[in-house]
Amino acid sequence: MNEVNAAIITIGDELLIGQTIDTNSAFIAQELNKIGIWVKRRIAIGDVKEHILKTLKEQTDDCAVVIVTGGLGPTADDITKPVLCEFFNAKLVVNEEALQNVKNIFTKLNRPLTERNLKQAEVPDNCIPISNGRGTAPGMYFTTPQNGVLFSLPGVPNEMKGMMTNSILGLLQQKFLLPFVVHRTLLLAGVGESTVADTLLGFENTLPGYIKLAYLPAYGTLRLRLTGRGDNESFVTGEIDLQFQKLQALVHESMVADEDVSLAQAVLLLLQQKNKTVATAESCTGGYIAHLLTANAGASANYNGSVVSYANKVKEELLHVQEQTLKNFGAVSEETVLEMARGVLLAMHTDYAIATSGIMGPDGGSDDKPVGTVWIAVASSKNTKAFKVFFRFDRSRNIEMTAQTALTMLHRFIVKEEGHRV
Amino acid sequence: MNEVNAAIITIGDELLIGQTIDTNSAFIAQELNKIGIWVKRRIAIGDVKEHILKTLKEQTDDCAVVIVTGGLGPTADDITKPVLCEFFNAKLVVNEEALQNVKNIFTKLNRPLTERNLKQAEVPDNCIPISNGRGTAPGMYFTTPQNGVLFSLPGVPNEMKGMMTNSILGLLQQKFLLPFVVHRTLLLAGVGESTVADTLLGFENTLPGYIKLAYLPAYGTLRLRLTGRGDNESFVTGEIDLQFQKLQALVHESMVADEDVSLAQAVLLLLQQKNKTVATAESCTGGYIAHLLTANAGASANYNGSVVSYANKVKEELLHVQEQTLKNFGAVSEETVLEMARGVLLAMHTDYAIATSGIMGPDGGSDDKPVGTVWIAVASSKNTKAFKVFFRFDRSRNIEMTAQTALTMLHRFIVKEEGHRV
Repeated sequence: MNEVNAAIITIGDELLIGQTIDTNSAFIAQELNKIGIWVKRRIAIGDVKEHILKTLKEQTDDCAVVIVTGGLGPTADDITKPVLCEFFNAKLVVNEEALQNVKNIFTKLNRPLTERNLKQAEVPDNCIPISNGRGTAPGMYFTTPQNGVLFSLPGVPNEMKGMMTNSILGLLQQKFLLPFVVHRTLLLAGVGESTVADTLLGFENTLPGYIKLAYLPAYGTLRLRLTGRGDNESFVTGEIDLQFQKLQALVHESMVADEDVSLAQAVLLLLQQKNKTVATAESCTGGYIAHLLTANAGASANYNGSVVSYANKVKEELLHVQEQTLKNFGAVSEETVLEMARGVLLAMHTDYAIATSGIMGPDGGSDDKPVGTVWIAVASSKNTKAFKVFFRFDRSRNIEMTAQTALTMLHRFIVKEEGHRV
Repeated sequence: MNEVNAAIITIGDELLIGQTIDTNSAFIAQELNKIGIWVKRRIAIGDVKEHILKTLKEQTDDCAVVIVTGGLGPTADDITKPVLCEFFNAKLVVNEEALQNVKNIFTKLNRPLTERNLKQAEVPDNCIPISNGRGTAPGMYFTTPQNGVLFSLPGVPNEMKGMMTNSILGLLQQKFLLPFVVHRTLLLAGVGESTVADTLLGFENTLPGYIKLAYLPAYGTLRLRLTGRGDNESFVTGEIDLQFQKLQALVHESMVADEDVSLAQAVLLLLQQKNKTVATAESCTGGYIAHLLTANAGASANYNGSVVSYANKVKEELLHVQEQTLKNFGAVSEETVLEMARGVLLAMHTDYAIATSGIMGPDGGSDDKPVGTVWIAVASSKNTKAFKVFFRFDRSRNIEMTAQTALTMLHRFIVKEEGHRV
C-alpha cells in the first residue's frame, strides 16, 4: 500500500499570539484524509523568514505533500511569497489571470484598487498559479526538489476551502497513487468515554490491522469512527461494513446517529422523518440551541423558532409563564421551565419543544442554586418532562453542555413517542 | 532583554484527521504571550511513539519552554505517558493526591470507578505532578536535560485552562527572568484590512523597534494590536500609550472599542453606559446574534431577548408582522424586516432592536433574491433604518457576517442617538 504523508504549515504571528484559532488545518486534514493522504504533522510558525525557511526544508524533506496556508494577505506583515521565492530560487512575476481576477473583484465591490492589492497578483515564476474563485490572492503549486508537491494557499478559510475542493484534491489524486480509505462514524450522546471504552475493549482487540477505531469526544457527545485503508476497495468496504454492524449493536443504547452528523443534525433528521416540528424557549442558552439547529440548511422545515427569554417579562408575556410561578419558584426551577416549554409549544404551534433555564456564571449563583444549576424541559402535546442538571465549567462551556444535553433529551423524548429513525 | 521561547505540542490523531479543532494552542499562546514568553512554534502530531519522541527532542533542544497537551485521556489510543517515561528515563508510579482526586470525582458523580480511571493517577517518577481541579488526569512538570521546562497537560480545554492559570504561569514566572510585555488593542468594524493598512503605512514606519503593530481581521471586524516589549516597564508603558493615542486618532471613524473586546461586547458596554436595552428579531441569523450577546456575563442587564422567527407564522403572531406585508414583499424584504424590528422593540419593551431576514444558502435563492441577500433593520422608539447587504460565502459564514454586520449597524445607530461611549 502506498503511504503518502502530508505536513500542514500555517504561517502567521496571529497563530502564535493566540489571537486566531486555526480552523484551516482541521479542514485540510479532513479532506486529505478522505482521499487517503495521512497528515503526519501540523505546524504553526510566525512571520519570521528563518523559521519559515527551516520549516519548509524539514517538511519537504519528510513529507511528499506539504500544504502551506496564510501569509498571502495584503498587509505588510505577510512575507510568505518572498520566502517561497528564496526557497524555490524564483522571482516574483505578475500573473495575468490573477491580475484580471483582482481587478474584477474591485470593480464589483466598487472599491479603489491600491498598489497593495495589485501585488497580490504576483507569483513566483516557477510555480503553477491556482485560481482563487473567492478572493484576490492566487494559490501556488510547486514541485519540490524531492519530487513532492507544495501548495501555498491564502489563510482566509473560505478561499482556502474553495481551492482545496476545486483544484488541489484533484491534483493530488493525479500525482499520487493513493490507497482506498473509508470511514464509518457513529454518534453517541449522554455516555462517558471510559464507559464506552470498557464496553468496546474486546471489539477493539478483534479488529483487523487495516481498520482502526477512534474515540472523538466533544461536549456530551462521543463520535466513534472506524477507518479502513487498503488497495482493494470492495474488500475493505465489505469488512468495514461488517465491523460497523458489530459496533452499532454494542453501543445501540446511547446511539443517536449512524453517520457523521452533529447532534442538532440528528434531531433534525429524526423530526424530518417523523414529519414533526420543534420550537425552543431559551433562557440560559440564550439562542445557542436555535443557532445549532438553524446552522443546518433546510432546518426551517422542522424548526419554527425560539423565544430567547432573558428578561422575566418576556417569559411572562411571550411564553405565558405565570407571574406567580416566577415569584414562588424563581426563573431557574422545574415549574418555570415546564411552563416555558408548554408556552413555546403553543405559541409556535409545534409538535415538540425544549426549554432551558439555568445559571451559567460566573455570577448569579446562590447557596441554594449555585452557578451551573440548570433546568431543562421537553414537551409534546401529550407529555412533558423536566430534568435538573449541574455543570461545573466556565460560562461558555456551561452553555455548550446545556445545549447538547437538551438536544440529547429531546432526541430521547421524540424516539420514545415516535420510535427510532429507520 | 531575556528572550524565552516556547513550543506548544498537541498530541492526538483526532487533530490530524481534522475531527477536532485545536483551541487549546490559541489559549496557551495567549497566556504565554501575556507574561512575555514568545511562542515560536505550534506542532500537532499523532499518537505515534516515534513522532512524539522526535518532536520532544527537537523542541526541548530549541525552546526553553515546551507545553504538551493531549493524550492523557482514559482510552487505549493515548500513549503520551509511556512515551514521556521513555523520554525522561522514568517509570510510572501512582500519585496519592491524584488518586484521591480521581476517587473523589467518581464518588461525586456516583459512577463506578474502573481500572482505566485509576491508571489516570499514575505519573512518571521524576516529574512534579500538577493537580487538576477540574478532572481526573494530573498535569506533569519536568525539567529537561537542557535545564528548560516541559509541562504535559490533559487535552480537555477546561482542565488545561485551569492548570495554566492556577499553576503553570506562576511556575514559569518563578523559573525565568521574563521581559515586560504590554498589549493595546483597538476594535474596528465595517472597514477593509487593506484600506486601514494604507492609512497606517506612515504610522507603522515611525514605530520604535520594540513596538509592533498587528492586523487581526475576522468576519467584518478588524483588531489592531500594538505590542511593546522591554525591561523597563514604565518606559514601555509610556511609549505604547503615546503610540496608542496616535493610532486611535488615525482610525477613529471605524473604531468601535479601544480595548480587546468582541463586537457584541462593545455593543453591550455602550448600552450599559447609556443605560439602554436591546432585543433581537432573528430570521436568517437563527439565534446567533442572541448567542453572541448572551455569551457575555452580565448581558441580561441590557439584553431582554430574541424572537427567532424561522416560520412566517411566528413573524406574524409574535412579532406582529402584517400577513399582507409578507404576501406582498416576502419574508426577505425591507418592509418585513422593519416590521420585525418594530415588533420586537414593542413586544420586549426595549430601547433598541435589530432584525435580520435573508437567504443563507445553499438553497432557497431565486433570480430576484439570490443566496446571500440579507435585509437588516435597526430601530429605536424614534427612528428605524434598514440596509440591504449581500454575502457570497457558505451558510455558516453568511450567518456570521450577517450577525457582525447587524451588530456594527446597531452600534452606529446607538452612537448616533446617544453619543460615543466615554
